[in-house]
Amino acid sequence: MVPRTASPHPSDPTDPSDPSGSPRPQGRSRPRASFDAVVVGGGVIGLVTAWRAAGRGLRTAVVDPAPGGGAARVAAGMLAAVTELHHGEEPLLGLGLASAARWADFAAELAEAAGAGVGYRACGTLAAALDADDRAELRELHALQRRCGLETEWLTGRECRQLEPMLAPGVRGGLRVDGDHQADPRLLTAALLTACERAGVAFHRAWAREVTVARGRATGVALDDGTGLAAGLTVLAGGCHSGRLGGLPPEVAVPVRPVKGQVLRLRITRPYAPFLSRTVRAVVRGGHVYLVPRESGELVVGATSEERGLDTTVTAGGVYQLLRDAHELVPGITELPLVETRAGLRPATPDNAPLLGPTALPGLHLATGHHRNGVLLAPVTGDVLAVSLTTGELPDHARPFAADRFARSGWEVPA
Amino acid sequence: MVPRTASPHPSDPTDPSDPSGSPRPQGRSRPRASFDAVVVGGGVIGLVTAWRAAGRGLRTAVVDPAPGGGAARVAAGMLAAVTELHHGEEPLLGLGLASAARWADFAAELAEAAGAGVGYRACGTLAAALDADDRAELRELHALQRRCGLETEWLTGRECRQLEPMLAPGVRGGLRVDGDHQADPRLLTAALLTACERAGVAFHRAWAREVTVARGRATGVALDDGTGLAAGLTVLAGGCHSGRLGGLPPEVAVPVRPVKGQVLRLRITRPYAPFLSRTVRAVVRGGHVYLVPRESGELVVGATSEERGLDTTVTAGGVYQLLRDAHELVPGITELPLVETRAGLRPATPDNAPLLGPTALPGLHLATGHHRNGVLLAPVTGDVLAVSLTTGELPDHARPFAADRFARSGWEVPA
Repeated sequence: MVPRTASPHPSDPTDPSDPSGSPRPQGRSRPRASFDAVVVGGGVIGLVTAWRAAGRGLRTAVVDPAPGGGAARVAAGMLAAVTELHHGEEPLLGLGLASAARWADFAAELAEAAGAGVGYRACGTLAAALDADDRAELRELHALQRRCGLETEWLTGRECRQLEPMLAPGVRGGLRVDGDHQADPRLLTAALLTACERAGVAFHRAWAREVTVARGRATGVALDDGTGLAAGLTVLAGGCHSGRLGGLPPEVAVPVRPVKGQVLRLRITRPYAPFLSRTVRAVVRGGHVYLVPRESGELVVGATSEERGLDTTVTAGGVYQLLRDAHELVPGITELPLVETRAGLRPATPDNAPLLGPTALPGLHLATGHHRNGVLLAPVTGDVLAVSLTTGELPDHARPFAADRFARSGWEVPA
Repeated sequence: MVPRTASPHPSDPTDPSDPSGSPRPQGRSRPRASFDAVVVGGGVIGLVTAWRAAGRGLRTAVVDPAPGGGAARVAAGMLAAVTELHHGEEPLLGLGLASAARWADFAAELAEAAGAGVGYRACGTLAAALDADDRAELRELHALQRRCGLETEWLTGRECRQLEPMLAPGVRGGLRVDGDHQADPRLLTAALLTACERAGVAFHRAWAREVTVARGRATGVALDDGTGLAAGLTVLAGGCHSGRLGGLPPEVAVPVRPVKGQVLRLRITRPYAPFLSRTVRAVVRGGHVYLVPRESGELVVGATSEERGLDTTVTAGGVYQLLRDAHELVPGITELPLVETRAGLRPATPDNAPLLGPTALPGLHLATGHHRNGVLLAPVTGDVLAVSLTTGELPDHARPFAADRFARSGWEVPA
């Protein structure tokens, strides 16, 4: 075990020399708890960061009004490093593959720590094409994958249906991606909560109002309930809300915006089980649709992609689009109970890659901006943040995702 | 006020001469409450019957594990005597029109009795046609309506859109039915519950197990919780469950089967209000779809029609069909929040008309089998049952719906 690090800069929230000029927590009347690391955000990324930080011996707290919430309550949990590959995002492929390679061990370690599984299922994925346009797009993806050294297999429509008999007769071809698996984000979140608790992580159920700053360093966070948490290390893992934390100096850019995704949950009832043996996905009329079958019988159908700010309304149009496209791909879904409709907010960045590690404000680290890949990237994010929190540096493979890359490039949040 | 009638045949549940041979309630150890009338079923029909019975001075009880539930929790509440007219169902038209004519006064009387409205909205209905087949079908309906002496107006597609600008550009024509209004079944149920309570109706929150019979007469009901309710008059108003009550002698046929209907509830948000000014409906590819806009902002979209026994599962296919058809008729629904999906069970009879009044078992009356028309027919049903309970006879206009018409014709429940 790495020895526990001391909090490098114990803070004084009432220090009159505090240069931040930010409003103070309610003052001396409330004692200010002190930690080595305080993580703002109790979603998958915040929790995995806190768990790994505690594992490195850091006294760690998580701030979240409802830990275990966030985008993972909605997400399907595809571990889709290869099928989510896009032109221009090749750097992200490396991080995704690194995390995918860790997933089996991570799932086992977490299950042991929490005493409960995370629904990891090494089932693979089939990406299908329904018409000539889809097939051309999928052929492009196949070519890109090969240029990136990935081995995926092109299948004819007949071969696709042999693999997954519920596929529509019209499927014209597909890509078999045996390494893109799945986990259940709700089980993952629950397990991370338990693992954090067992590792001694403290939970503060409140909103973080602002990062506190003294002598040019982050010194913790002030909460909406008036309390303050002092910490030498502050991690901002607030998903799409990350940019809204108060007290961030201008040189710290957190260019994260919400991208709404509506998701359905169906149930694979007995006469239709197993229904699908792997994740099946397609591009239908330009929109992505996927069906993720769990061993529990849950079938997740996602997802819309909408720029709507913080709106999490489930709309008639979103549900219609998902059912229409999923029905075109797998007509037999009509018989399955529809048990849940929900919308979540992906934390997207300008380059669709996460923001990891130290910022221009000493003591402040980011673990946010995971966009579509929070579940996939959870293991590597936990490991990267454990390194950055204990050494102040990013490991080499995480350098392309340095938290300050947009600040360096002069990026500004559009008004 | 009609004077209170005495319970004509006070019953003794342990009478050894009881010819029914049915199992007894738990015996003398539990006191048996006694009423003039006991109504089995606390849905809209049971409640309106109980309210009207109490209004005639009968000491009345309602038996239902959850009064106020039933099909009305799901129903859209169209008062569609004219637009629901079908070939061969002309007798039902008369009853529907009689009830529709009572609705405004009924709503006002009930609102005063309950201190709360029932969402009655005299908004009219537009039945639209999307293609040539739909138009031909709607022309048929128009001709049938005219043969029945009904005045409805044929509109061109352009005229339809002038009336309802949200209609799809492809609408080819429609029927304007200014007399088919709406009420909110959930408000109606709530108001009936309150009105019943204020009128002194007793509620027994349990399942009725069987009708008890002595000396060839119904003497009340035995409940699943072991209690018994004695009554000279027993009303079976159990919706699609009516045929399952124990103790019914073979000469009493209750040919009611469940017809599943899935229904969506959307919300008309401010930028889109009022969205529609009246009920809009259509036949799309042979399936019926309707959109019922409430003043509250609720937009009800229904309904599938499925023979699935007692299954109330919401399915992907049902929701898909409704959204697809509603979207074809009114494309702007895509922007509206989808707030609820639910399935209910219509109590259907072989001729789609209700079963009203006395049966072959003296003392047992029926008020069930209202199929698609329970809300429409609530006022007339309450009035008809008030007459049949106090006189033992049906009023003339209800004779075609006599509860014993299938028993007389030798109808038997299919195995």
